[in-house]
Amino acid sequence: MVVVDRFRITDTLREVWRPLVGLFLLDTLVTIAYVGLNWTWIVPAGLPLPLLGTGLAVFLGVRNNTAYARWWEARTLWGSVLNNSRSFARGLTLLVVPPEAEKTRYHLVHHQIAWAHALRCFMRREDPTHDIAPFLSHQALARVTQAANPPFAIQREMAELLLAARREGWLDSIEASSLNTTLTALTDSQGGLERIRNTPMPQQYAAFSRVFVTAYCLMLPFGIVPDLNLLTPLGSAVIGFVFLALDESGRHLEDPFMRSVYDVPMSAITRTVEIDLRQAVGDRDVPPPLHPVRGILR
Amino acid sequence: MVVVDRFRITDTLREVWRPLVGLFLLDTLVTIAYVGLNWTWIVPAGLPLPLLGTGLAVFLGVRNNTAYARWWEARTLWGSVLNNSRSFARGLTLLVVPPEAEKTRYHLVHHQIAWAHALRCFMRREDPTHDIAPFLSHQALARVTQAANPPFAIQREMAELLLAARREGWLDSIEASSLNTTLTALTDSQGGLERIRNTPMPQQYAAFSRVFVTAYCLMLPFGIVPDLNLLTPLGSAVIGFVFLALDESGRHLEDPFMRSVYDVPMSAITRTVEIDLRQAVGDRDVPPPLHPVRGILR
Amino acid sequence: MVVVDRFRITDTLREVWRPLVGLFLLDTLVTIAYVGLNWTWIVPAGLPLPLLGTGLAVFLGVRNNTAYARWWEARTLWGSVLNNSRSFARGLTLLVVPPEAEKTRYHLVHHQIAWAHALRCFMRREDPTHDIAPFLSHQALARVTQAANPPFAIQREMAELLLAARREGWLDSIEASSLNTTLTALTDSQGGLERIRNTPMPQQYAAFSRVFVTAYCLMLPFGIVPDLNLLTPLGSAVIGFVFLALDESGRHLEDPFMRSVYDVPMSAITRTVEIDLRQAVGDRDVPPPLHPVRGILR
Amino acid sequence: MVVVDRFRITDTLREVWRPLVGLFLLDTLVTIAYVGLNWTWIVPAGLPLPLLGTGLAVFLGVRNNTAYARWWEARTLWGSVLNNSRSFARGLTLLVVPPEAEKTRYHLVHHQIAWAHALRCFMRREDPTHDIAPFLSHQALARVTQAANPPFAIQREMAELLLAARREGWLDSIEASSLNTTLTALTDSQGGLERIRNTPMPQQYAAFSRVFVTAYCLMLPFGIVPDLNLLTPLGSAVIGFVFLALDESGRHLEDPFMRSVYDVPMSAITRTVEIDLRQAVGDRDVPPPLHPVRGILR
Amino acid sequence: MVVVDRFRITDTLREVWRPLVGLFLLDTLVTIAYVGLNWTWIVPAGLPLPLLGTGLAVFLGVRNNTAYARWWEARTLWGSVLNNSRSFARGLTLLVVPPEAEKTRYHLVHHQIAWAHALRCFMRREDPTHDIAPFLSHQALARVTQAANPPFAIQREMAELLLAARREGWLDSIEASSLNTTLTALTDSQGGLERIRNTPMPQQYAAFSRVFVTAYCLMLPFGIVPDLNLLTPLGSAVIGFVFLALDESGRHLEDPFMRSVYDVPMSAITRTVEIDLRQAVGDRDVPPPLHPVRGILR
Repeated sequence: MVVVDRFRITDTLREVWRPLVGLFLLDTLVTIAYVGLNWTWIVPAGLPLPLLGTGLAVFLGVRNNTAYARWWEARTLWGSVLNNSRSFARGLTLLVVPPEAEKTRYHLVHHQIAWAHALRCFMRREDPTHDIAPFLSHQALARVTQAANPPFAIQREMAELLLAARREGWLDSIEASSLNTTLTALTDSQGGLERIRNTPMPQQYAAFSRVFVTAYCLMLPFGIVPDLNLLTPLGSAVIGFVFLALDESGRHLEDPFMRSVYDVPMSAITRTVEIDLRQAVGDRDVPPPLHPVRGILR
Repeated sequence: MVVVDRFRITDTLREVWRPLVGLFLLDTLVTIAYVGLNWTWIVPAGLPLPLLGTGLAVFLGVRNNTAYARWWEARTLWGSVLNNSRSFARGLTLLVVPPEAEKTRYHLVHHQIAWAHALRCFMRREDPTHDIAPFLSHQALARVTQAANPPFAIQREMAELLLAARREGWLDSIEASSLNTTLTALTDSQGGLERIRNTPMPQQYAAFSRVFVTAYCLMLPFGIVPDLNLLTPLGSAVIGFVFLALDESGRHLEDPFMRSVYDVPMSAITRTVEIDLRQAVGDRDVPPPLHPVRGILR
Repeated sequence: MVVVDRFRITDTLREVWRPLVGLFLLDTLVTIAYVGLNWTWIVPAGLPLPLLGTGLAVFLGVRNNTAYARWWEARTLWGSVLNNSRSFARGLTLLVVPPEAEKTRYHLVHHQIAWAHALRCFMRREDPTHDIAPFLSHQALARVTQAANPPFAIQREMAELLLAARREGWLDSIEASSLNTTLTALTDSQGGLERIRNTPMPQQYAAFSRVFVTAYCLMLPFGIVPDLNLLTPLGSAVIGFVFLALDESGRHLEDPFMRSVYDVPMSAITRTVEIDLRQAVGDRDVPPPLHPVRGILR
Repeated sequence: MVVVDRFRITDTLREVWRPLVGLFLLDTLVTIAYVGLNWTWIVPAGLPLPLLGTGLAVFLGVRNNTAYARWWEARTLWGSVLNNSRSFARGLTLLVVPPEAEKTRYHLVHHQIAWAHALRCFMRREDPTHDIAPFLSHQALARVTQAANPPFAIQREMAELLLAARREGWLDSIEASSLNTTLTALTDSQGGLERIRNTPMPQQYAAFSRVFVTAYCLMLPFGIVPDLNLLTPLGSAVIGFVFLALDESGRHLEDPFMRSVYDVPMSAITRTVEIDLRQAVGDRDVPPPLHPVRGILR
Repeated sequence: MVVVDRFRITDTLREVWRPLVGLFLLDTLVTIAYVGLNWTWIVPAGLPLPLLGTGLAVFLGVRNNTAYARWWEARTLWGSVLNNSRSFARGLTLLVVPPEAEKTRYHLVHHQIAWAHALRCFMRREDPTHDIAPFLSHQALARVTQAANPPFAIQREMAELLLAARREGWLDSIEASSLNTTLTALTDSQGGLERIRNTPMPQQYAAFSRVFVTAYCLMLPFGIVPDLNLLTPLGSAVIGFVFLALDESGRHLEDPFMRSVYDVPMSAITRTVEIDLRQAVGDRDVPPPLHPVRGILR
């Protein structure tokens, strides 16, 4: 995710320079043909650009609003991963009272850290073994890495740990219910993230908006060259840039987990979970927070 | 649901080729008449296309936004079916403590799988018997298939099983309340899905938007032929395509359960419920996840 | 509520034929005067229809979006009436354990059915006595029909029944709390429905949008007759139809309880409550579900 | 709040007649100068009204949508005051079991009525003493009226009453938790209402929209007089009316507590709280509901 | 945050006077060149300003809507900090019964005040030591100021205090669960605020909208000077002002914690927390509420 505050036109141009250069070349050719060679027959008497623009505006409005909403929902769900991880750790302090349950509490907090890392890897379709190994026992690790859904398997391990604690008498049914409520909130966050990852934006919005923007840009120089003459490439580039940028902006927000610069910073968030929870149980060798690399936080 | 990432113009064209071909034919006829036969009298001095376009833009904006919101709400409700099924299974592990309740716990998880399958069939107005038979006893199956609302009947069976467990003393009132909360969340998801299936979009939006888009497309070639001449069929097709695509996009999202390619992938979701829950209770012959067939996940 | 899937232009025309015929007559008069009698002085050199159209588009956009949101909120609240009625019945099964509480449980489910019927009548400002009499004792019926707010009075009766059950020792404080949570959800649904019924859309949106659409339609033929000549009535009718339809669509969704064809199907929903809950307590003479009459479900 | 159903143009005109008359006078002057005196030099060759109109449409769209959302949120929060007051009264019936707690229950319901009245006065920055005195003891009244935030002080009194009941053994910790949940919902409603009252709409939207609408209206007659001639005052008034009405509509919804005709009917809602809760505890001299006065419900 | 009700044009102009003066200078130069020097060649035959305006309208519409939603979400989250702080204090009264727990209750309320102040400083990246020192013990203060996340560390201190109270037998598991629920709500508010602070608006919206508005304003005088002549600087300034104001309005709402005049009034809100909670535990030297300074509440 981009976190720099200063606007750098180079960054944003980098995204659309390819179609923009293509558009500029077309504009120049049209201008040479029309102004230089006087091939006025290449331009129809009037192009219905405003009619096309109105339809395009509705398309791009709907698409950008929904793409932003998806991206913000993904970000909010990752926020709730952090919130509920903290609440689970604090709940363990408050609700698992006996001093002899200390070790179980410690293990549960470590499982919670492993869950956050496993969820991040699951979202990116990566192997979680390396990231979660420090926080799980050998047997638990084996069971988790074999499961179809590793984060859900870690939650099952946590439920088993809590069940063992209940059978020891360290937890009553109220405390178990209360911790179960937090686990349910974590399950909901995971399910929400899977939903966004597994459900692409309806293809028609994504595909059509690209097609229509391209068609609009191709028609643009023919429509404005009679009026703008030599300024056509400049004028066409500016207008084309607006529509290309709208299309690109929507495209980047559509998939919040695809390791682009507009990605939700999942590594940084899971690192914060690790720091906050390990500080909470008194671990010493807590890693530092992740910092943006060249303005990008992963 | 379409899950391929690459844009295939053929897929999207398949949806609108019929009206597009009709529009193209009309355009060609108008062009031949106006340019070839010089019947200039067929074209009025000026057509109020921008005025019509403004009204159409409001209509299509409202309609596409609400259709998308319906579709996403349906998808989110199916997501909560998955989340709460997982939470119910995990809650049973944590809240039903005595080892002798093992078998009841196993039956309840199987009932939960049956509930998900029954809900899918209920949404598609199909007979659930075949899909739920493996998970229910003969008597329960008979009671469920006779009920007006099979998923609700399965929930009643689950309540009876839990009541029997309470009378055995395996559950206290807190544990029962806590599991009841998850069942309530499942009832809410089911009710939300029934609401979307039983409440079509207000007909005026659906019907009028088709009528107005058709009217607009019929007027289009007459309006642009004086300027575009021989290019009329091309220009008219591009603009008509934008509005037809907007109308089609809204139409497909309106009914998320109608087995179109934009359908919510209910079979895949209920299969995931089955996999996750059967792995959770240690079943062996767990079926594989569903995969997209030619880019479509059902 | 309209539930037919096929588009019938006659249905939708029925809503706007009056203003449409008026508009057509005006158009014809203007066309006769301008084209037939050559009274060109009746038409100003240029009418600022696009300027008016822009303002109108903002108005109609805001209005239709909010009207749709109201309608969908009303439908969702009725959905939650159904969901929570089911959850209350299931909760009674699970949380009221002693066999000797059977009769109280039965009465409570019947009270819940009465509550749904009373709420429907309260929304439509009808007398609920006939609909709720089968489900209440004589004394309860007398108290309920005297109250300012019958559904709230039924909930008080239910609280008294539950209190009596508590004093018998059939319910502990946890079970009472848990059922109270469901009753609170039902109170919230009722309050939400009262809020929508008692709070009309801000009058300025409703009133102004009709005024402005009318003004626009009156100006329309004068603006387009110089270009369209004899086609003026047709062109004006199409454009006027778009704006009239937008205005009508918003108007119909504004009040979801007014027994129009766009009404929320309250009779059908409360019938479903009755069927599901009576099946749940084993009643025999369960009525059939309501079916649409000529495509309309009440 | 306006609750009449019939549209009365006079009501709505009353809001905007001042600027409308000003606009009409300007229009007339411009028309006299241009048409009568033939001062054609007062009108530039072309005014960029559509360019200004586009920017204005975005502004007014954003502003009216957010103003409506604020107003509806305020109305919904007042609705939740009513819902949770009813739920609190019903919860007391169900959760405070011992017959000897009757008097405490009665006092708590009266405190709840006082809370609703105090909240209304707090929103309107009025002295609540007169309205809440009948429902509180002398000591409680003294403490409440001295507090910075009277409704919050009444909630503290209620917590003390409940604490005393707990020390008497009339409430166990579960019942206290459950009632505390309802009190928390009431605190949230109060906080939400304070948030809306204390946070005006961002000034730039309110201020700029008025400035831009004024600028647009001032330019309007100059832009249309060459085309409309003697009809300029009429045409300009209609278009100006649309934009002035949009601006006014947003302005009125912005502040839902300012005793305008678009106000949330707080007096009526708190009266309903009083009626429903006093009927619930068997009071006799229950006041009648408030009725609209000349179509306005306060 | 601006809280004055009266519109002061000077305030709002202060935000955009720089670009506006630049625009005015350009306009004047263009006017002098075109009208005075008769350099008509500097102006192309027609500038596609409406085409650019349509794209810009979509951009600014999406951007202003999302920026407002961010700002309102931040404000709502701060509102929930206040609500839940009050609910936590009231919950302590009701749920921590024994008279000997008085001192612990007092300390917990003071910790809650410290949490609100620490959260404000954390949002503004300031050192919280001075603001929270009066409410914490020396040891607690040392632990908190060392932590990576001071507010989370204060919540851990509160959990330890509550755990000690549980071990004393002053709290049962139900009361602890209930207070834990409120602490979870506070954790959620904190996490939501961190999310907004750490996630800037997608840069493309912010950066591109400024670029496009600038491009539009640069083209504006060339596009309108042939029609407006000497009035060009005025006309161009009015239209440019609309778009600059739209861009600025969005920019200011984007970051609700940056100490601008559109900032959420965090100091005032945390002061209210302090006043309400200290009055609730009977402190005497309660500070006065913060008042706006020159119409701005911090």
